[in-house]
Amino acid sequence: MKRRDFLKAGTVAAGAAAITAASNLPKPAIAQDRIEMNIVSTWPRDFPGLGTGAQRFAQRVQDISDGRIQVQYFAAGERVGAFDAFDEVASGNAQAYHGADYYWKGRHPGWAYYTAVPFGLTYVEMNAWIRFMGGQELWDELGAEFGIKGLPCGSTGVQMGGWFNKEINSADDLKGLKMRMPGLGGDVLAKLGASPVSLPGGQIYENLVSGSIDATEWVGPWNDYAMKLYEAAKYYYYPGYHEPGSMLAVGMNKSWWEGLSANDQMLIESAATVENDVMMSEFNANNGAYLRKLIQEQGVQVRKFNDDVYDAFGEASAEVFEEARAHSDLANRIHESFLAARADVGGWMNLADAAYTQQRNRVLGV
Amino acid sequence: MKRRDFLKAGTVAAGAAAITAASNLPKPAIAQDRIEMNIVSTWPRDFPGLGTGAQRFAQRVQDISDGRIQVQYFAAGERVGAFDAFDEVASGNAQAYHGADYYWKGRHPGWAYYTAVPFGLTYVEMNAWIRFMGGQELWDELGAEFGIKGLPCGSTGVQMGGWFNKEINSADDLKGLKMRMPGLGGDVLAKLGASPVSLPGGQIYENLVSGSIDATEWVGPWNDYAMKLYEAAKYYYYPGYHEPGSMLAVGMNKSWWEGLSANDQMLIESAATVENDVMMSEFNANNGAYLRKLIQEQGVQVRKFNDDVYDAFGEASAEVFEEARAHSDLANRIHESFLAARADVGGWMNLADAAYTQQRNRVLGV
Repeated sequence: MKRRDFLKAGTVAAGAAAITAASNLPKPAIAQDRIEMNIVSTWPRDFPGLGTGAQRFAQRVQDISDGRIQVQYFAAGERVGAFDAFDEVASGNAQAYHGADYYWKGRHPGWAYYTAVPFGLTYVEMNAWIRFMGGQELWDELGAEFGIKGLPCGSTGVQMGGWFNKEINSADDLKGLKMRMPGLGGDVLAKLGASPVSLPGGQIYENLVSGSIDATEWVGPWNDYAMKLYEAAKYYYYPGYHEPGSMLAVGMNKSWWEGLSANDQMLIESAATVENDVMMSEFNANNGAYLRKLIQEQGVQVRKFNDDVYDAFGEASAEVFEEARAHSDLANRIHESFLAARADVGGWMNLADAAYTQQRNRVLGV
Repeated sequence: MKRRDFLKAGTVAAGAAAITAASNLPKPAIAQDRIEMNIVSTWPRDFPGLGTGAQRFAQRVQDISDGRIQVQYFAAGERVGAFDAFDEVASGNAQAYHGADYYWKGRHPGWAYYTAVPFGLTYVEMNAWIRFMGGQELWDELGAEFGIKGLPCGSTGVQMGGWFNKEINSADDLKGLKMRMPGLGGDVLAKLGASPVSLPGGQIYENLVSGSIDATEWVGPWNDYAMKLYEAAKYYYYPGYHEPGSMLAVGMNKSWWEGLSANDQMLIESAATVENDVMMSEFNANNGAYLRKLIQEQGVQVRKFNDDVYDAFGEASAEVFEEARAHSDLANRIHESFLAARADVGGWMNLADAAYTQQRNRVLGV
């Protein structure tokens, strides 16, 4: 059977090797072809949603392979630091990472498109693009330049616009604002005269309380509640333009991946796709409940960015995109493919999910 | 290992039994514990989206188990008729069906909630309810009454409101209309003075052309294009109130399911969850492209139901729900759980997917 194809990958566990030499008899599957998969993660251990989801993915690979794929999961810092995960996998020291691919945009701007870009795709749009509109093929082409094979493995969904200590009634109100926002979203803020700051999650609260920053975004009600950001800022803005459906990825060493049998590849891809769907479900279930807690228990003031402010975000985002696509032919082709998906599936959403949800909620007073 | 638990289910394939008697030596896994899984489907073979998705699920179970779970897939009519699938599985003649659980609402109105109900949940909302807000537990309770274990296994997403030969400008325009619409959605139409008709897909086109019916709904641009419904009606209305996120299910014989090892249960559940996410991606990718073809190539006139018409749909839906929940304590508890999810996750959508998509598309002119 194809199970033996794994031998190409050269990752036979010690126990299996000992048995192989001893006998030509058929051997139980467990000992016959155990595969080692070490996953280094960009999330702290048990970090709600992102970390727990990555750990659930790791466990599922092991369970649905009935232990044949032996998975060891290392949270950020347990083996390498969060931002060293990419090199650890590209070099072959580990087989896979779980993280947000926009962390690697300094290596190539194409990576940003595989987490989230400003005015980008929501969860269901992203899935359509990746799987049926050319997104995966271009991701593979990008990954091949670095020795990485990526697959979707989770999503936070649409993120909130952020926490502010004053109302934002025009783009002018953003000028001079020191706001924590990483990635291309931060570049957009800079174009509007704000000062984007990049801070790891663990330092946001203290900087906001001390006034070192004026505003911050993080994720959404569930995660933001846990960070107690409501203690330091009262205006909670929506919708976020910067991360409309942040996809998480499992990135695998490309040579290791290609040495797996087709069935084992499908098994790992299945576990990743499950986590993609389950993590999104968990975020949506919890965001609804925690949004209510923030409003009712903590007195948070929810505000919507008005059309003028959103128009300004849109114009600045277009400028940022021009810089990204100028990087290379591949960056430009990724951008063009993304644009086509946004027009096609985004246009469909005007008649489907967006139109329906708006009408249903209007009628029901939700 | 837990693999042997399957023996409780009594589904050893013939080849495995022959080898078992011959030797006490360790046996290759394939021969050791082959499990038979016959799936009867409610869809015609290769039916786009629904049928091809069900077939993809069946293949995936076999592939990620490396052939240990031997799956045979029977399209509608190949072993039993579409609507006989439920009894075939409940009786243990087959191990699983793939279908839309609202087909069984005559047995219990609770089944309707596990496909779609009027003013119900979208794809992402449904996933949150099923997995993290009590939906699966109530589905299990309902299934136990019939000997069925159900899991999510695909979705069509938000369906279009239907094809009409005249404009619908008020609820009065629905009076006397003979419209093909099954399920609770049809009951809503009846409350508004229309005559709902239930027709299998294959008979819709001829009835619409001949004038036997005045209007019809089917699925969305991708599937409706294939049916050539644009030849018989020119007004294509959105958004559909009747099936806002039609989930498909794999329903398994409960005793068979409970005889599987925990790992094999997770393997099948994984394959089902993958198909859930992949089928939705495929529908969204194709609906965008086929919507454009319908408009540009076929001159279809896309129309939005106005607020007055939607309000009327909402009032009639509320009446239909009262009848469903009056059926039994369980029907009422399913309804209450559904309502709580709609309020919580639906409320979150006002700040997230729905708000973001509307603002993004407005700014970009999508």
